[in-house]
Amino acid sequence: MSGCSVRHYTLQISTQGKGTTEITNEVAQCLRDSGVHEGLVTVFVRHTSASLVIMENADQSARHDLHEFFDRLVPENTPWYQHTCEGPDDMPSHIRMALTRTSETIPVTGARLQLGTWQGIYLFEHRRASHWRDVFITVMGVS
Amino acid sequence: MSGCSVRHYTLQISTQGKGTTEITNEVAQCLRDSGVHEGLVTVFVRHTSASLVIMENADQSARHDLHEFFDRLVPENTPWYQHTCEGPDDMPSHIRMALTRTSETIPVTGARLQLGTWQGIYLFEHRRASHWRDVFITVMGVS
Amino acid sequence: MSGCSVRHYTLQISTQGKGTTEITNEVAQCLRDSGVHEGLVTVFVRHTSASLVIMENADQSARHDLHEFFDRLVPENTPWYQHTCEGPDDMPSHIRMALTRTSETIPVTGARLQLGTWQGIYLFEHRRASHWRDVFITVMGVS
Repeated sequence: MSGCSVRHYTLQISTQGKGTTEITNEVAQCLRDSGVHEGLVTVFVRHTSASLVIMENADQSARHDLHEFFDRLVPENTPWYQHTCEGPDDMPSHIRMALTRTSETIPVTGARLQLGTWQGIYLFEHRRASHWRDVFITVMGVS
Repeated sequence: MSGCSVRHYTLQISTQGKGTTEITNEVAQCLRDSGVHEGLVTVFVRHTSASLVIMENADQSARHDLHEFFDRLVPENTPWYQHTCEGPDDMPSHIRMALTRTSETIPVTGARLQLGTWQGIYLFEHRRASHWRDVFITVMGVS
Repeated sequence: MSGCSVRHYTLQISTQGKGTTEITNEVAQCLRDSGVHEGLVTVFVRHTSASLVIMENADQSARHDLHEFFDRLVPENTPWYQHTCEGPDDMPSHIRMALTRTSETIPVTGARLQLGTWQGIYLFEHRRASHWRDVFITVMGVS
């Protein structure tokens, strides 16, 4: 039992159109800065056309196939979409976000993220254009 | 470093059959009541035929298309469903829940939910009939 | 307001190929051991080919249909998969993980998990072979 520390960080992540960008190192840097040894890191994407996924970090082909799967499951130019004011990638981006995650909570012990060996944290961009995306990091726990 | 506060609230949300109901204001009211300034709000749906999604809150057509997508991806009256004792919307409701979210964790700083500009918190009802749904809110942090 | 407690546990769960294994009792045992009365339990799967889902715990047919749905939505032997080095169930396992959950956060009050009546916590194995899977449990709150 001891005092509870809460620290917040905002990451601004540059994305290059549709696909996944690894942010594991950036999240780990927030944890180091916080001084928290035991607790939780919460990652929260502040957008509805980008999302999170914890994904295999070794072989790029896994992420290639993940992108391809979502392009096929939620295609652009579907005739029944009504929400197309920002272009053919507008509505698919919201659906792909809803099918993945907005927040993830990762345990911390011994001042380290307890990710598995092959797990990386990825920001998943669903729009065609490049964007700056805000990812909010909260580290909560004890020193 | 300071004392840790945990406050719980149960929201009872009325749903009118399949679709999304915004609960952002209700969640924000719990946060105000808690007095927590820095921490996390966790939203948890206590059902397996309703779920959560953080979705674009500006243009209703986005939510219309989201509903339509799930109606097409997980249709009723699929011949291989075995779990149909409560009707044709029974099994699809569990699958749609599994594809979206049961819990979401939203950061709080300066006593405010750190949602993005276009993000709203929605309860996603998957059954045809009206229901009262229990949504459990936990606010944890420091004052 | 009082001191904050953080306790961690690692569950090693045996899976028997594709399908869901209930871990609700194991998670509840961690909570009891922690002595936390008010707070949150976070469940985190340390793998990219297994995931979590909170699912109906009464009628096994619901889980049967859930498995069948994912077998059809993300089939093996899809010709465009590149990531097949570990076999035909390799890439589908990552996609099914991405469509479900890696972490879940469950509220605790009165020293009890606040799951709904029909909610169970399940580890979702996506590989054909039996595995031992690490599930990391964090209990955070006040006594």
